[in-house]
Amino acid sequence: MNPEDEERAARLTLSFLAEPGEPALGALLRCCRPAEVVAAVMSGNEPRTALPAAAELSGLARAVRRWRSRLGRLPSAAALAAWERDGIRLLCPGDAEWPTQLAVLADAQPVVLWLRGGADLRYACLRSVSVVGARAATGYGEHVATEMAAALAERGWAVISGGAYGIDSAAHCGALGAEGITVAVLASGLGYGYPKGHLELFSAIAGQGVLVSEWPPDRGPTRPGFLVRNRLIAALSCGTVVVEAALRSGALSTARHARDLCRPLMAVPGPVTSGQSEGCHEIIREWGAVLVTGARDVIENVSPAGDGLDARRIGPVYPRDNLDPVTLAVLEAVPPRGGSGPASVAVAAGVDLNTVLRCLGELAAAGFVERCAQGWRLRKDA
Amino acid sequence: MNPEDEERAARLTLSFLAEPGEPALGALLRCCRPAEVVAAVMSGNEPRTALPAAAELSGLARAVRRWRSRLGRLPSAAALAAWERDGIRLLCPGDAEWPTQLAVLADAQPVVLWLRGGADLRYACLRSVSVVGARAATGYGEHVATEMAAALAERGWAVISGGAYGIDSAAHCGALGAEGITVAVLASGLGYGYPKGHLELFSAIAGQGVLVSEWPPDRGPTRPGFLVRNRLIAALSCGTVVVEAALRSGALSTARHARDLCRPLMAVPGPVTSGQSEGCHEIIREWGAVLVTGARDVIENVSPAGDGLDARRIGPVYPRDNLDPVTLAVLEAVPPRGGSGPASVAVAAGVDLNTVLRCLGELAAAGFVERCAQGWRLRKDA
Repeated sequence: MNPEDEERAARLTLSFLAEPGEPALGALLRCCRPAEVVAAVMSGNEPRTALPAAAELSGLARAVRRWRSRLGRLPSAAALAAWERDGIRLLCPGDAEWPTQLAVLADAQPVVLWLRGGADLRYACLRSVSVVGARAATGYGEHVATEMAAALAERGWAVISGGAYGIDSAAHCGALGAEGITVAVLASGLGYGYPKGHLELFSAIAGQGVLVSEWPPDRGPTRPGFLVRNRLIAALSCGTVVVEAALRSGALSTARHARDLCRPLMAVPGPVTSGQSEGCHEIIREWGAVLVTGARDVIENVSPAGDGLDARRIGPVYPRDNLDPVTLAVLEAVPPRGGSGPASVAVAAGVDLNTVLRCLGELAAAGFVERCAQGWRLRKDA
Repeated sequence: MNPEDEERAARLTLSFLAEPGEPALGALLRCCRPAEVVAAVMSGNEPRTALPAAAELSGLARAVRRWRSRLGRLPSAAALAAWERDGIRLLCPGDAEWPTQLAVLADAQPVVLWLRGGADLRYACLRSVSVVGARAATGYGEHVATEMAAALAERGWAVISGGAYGIDSAAHCGALGAEGITVAVLASGLGYGYPKGHLELFSAIAGQGVLVSEWPPDRGPTRPGFLVRNRLIAALSCGTVVVEAALRSGALSTARHARDLCRPLMAVPGPVTSGQSEGCHEIIREWGAVLVTGARDVIENVSPAGDGLDARRIGPVYPRDNLDPVTLAVLEAVPPRGGSGPASVAVAAGVDLNTVLRCLGELAAAGFVERCAQGWRLRKDA
């Protein structure tokens, strides 16, 4: 096994043994390669670490023993193959699609991410907003979340949320309805699918965006898992908007992560007579969250200074020569007007359909191409 | 005529000749006594000023000529007597009831104030909040304004507003309903009464609070007058709350005055789908207005540091030895529990009923006494 494959295999293994957000794993990966940690777990010995404090060492030893006790969780080859057939793929730090946004987590990065869906996670996150809020949303909140997500998507921004009922669902649906990219970051495995009532929504997101989880595909949700997941929602996006949240809503934990990560934090006000807006008002007043009333305000807050203020300039345009040769070939096969379907683009570019779909998603997120009635065309301002 | 009466008479005359907010009058009163200005107007000469700039002098000369052309506006003795019979009284700087809050206007203080109503303006303003907003208010805005004003009044805060339809009216009614003191600052003369649909409201305010105007009693409203009046609403109170305002609402001019006078400026958020909340969201985001959701937030913002935060301590308590002998006699006639009606208090204190009503208003505003089912009693925390 070459070193790269060895690292992937080790990270996959650790994904099944350690809980996302466990500090011991971060501490170990600061000084050991993943394969060394796995070897230590398998052998029952401590890994060769160079950690200073004995106390911390003993905590790590406990963690290694805990992971060893979970070796039964490791998946069979058949299970891995089945997930792959379901379109679930493993993403590791260092992969081209690994979100650069996650650098903000420093040593607390996920050991792996599990993905399902055609959109490129890294491209999507580069130009994305998290739109979150209460499960028990009001009609007002769902309306605002849907409209905001649709308007963000129309302006080329990906919408990130948590796949839950209420505001999350409204945000995903708004982006999907506007034919935009949406990212659902789940607190359970992608093969498990929680909540069950959203399996259809998750299929739609996989078709047009991407589903993300730190948990292995077979894992169900746990209460602390939601809080761990929330840090990822805040970290992946350029900024977080809370649409509706009661004072003790979980959405405020996402807001707290955004604030702590120094990412723009925004909130939508609502009637002061509505308990579901109390959390929004609280973070505007007490945390300095910026009051936003729509997508325009949001874009002003998450765009680099001066960007996004000009209504004609819809988004950043990356230089073509940063594109890899295959993506560039796809871009050159997209017509400037009229529009072509993915199959025609695939023929023109000489690549297979899956690659075309993935490249088009990347190119759209990067502002080169846009969907139209006839398929895809170059964006006029690109 | 003694000098004090001479000054009152001169100010009364100037009130009929100069427009409130006219800079020329402020400039002249900075260096001349009111009687000197009146003498100059009557004689057609410039007053003996010591102003430096010739340009400013010529502007002042023009103003004096303008006022001279308006001598026909001076009221007959019969008109003055009729207004007095209607309970309209003249308040001049230096009078005991002149609001100390107006010191913030420095040289731009009103030349006089016309009042109608039993409450003491100075006491009321010492512990007051301006609650303002759109005429074209929504049911939501009127509900919030009414509730907020009632809660402020219950906690011993006077509610100041502009007597207009919509939010103003809701604020006055909320305070009246809670048996609190409310102050309506009108942009027309108190004998004119604008809007006509509020004559009943104005009677109620005069009965329980006080009506204020910078304009002589016979003057109708003018468009610029509303803007001039708004500075007074902002200056009289300890802080201003905008409940609902469209982006170009006149309520934002009151907000601007509050900001410019460095008085706490607050706004109530609302649905982002409502145009009548757009102005509120704008001043929260752009002017740094504090988002408030109810009377509690407002009191926290207008109270001196540490005051108002303790739920048990309802308001500031002024030392008894600052009270004049008559007010002190009334205070000593108010029972600590049970409660007495004003007539019983009048007998016990040995003063007439009108004086008792006025003193009770002052004592309530200052936190000494409170209304109860049986009449008036001492406040427990006083």
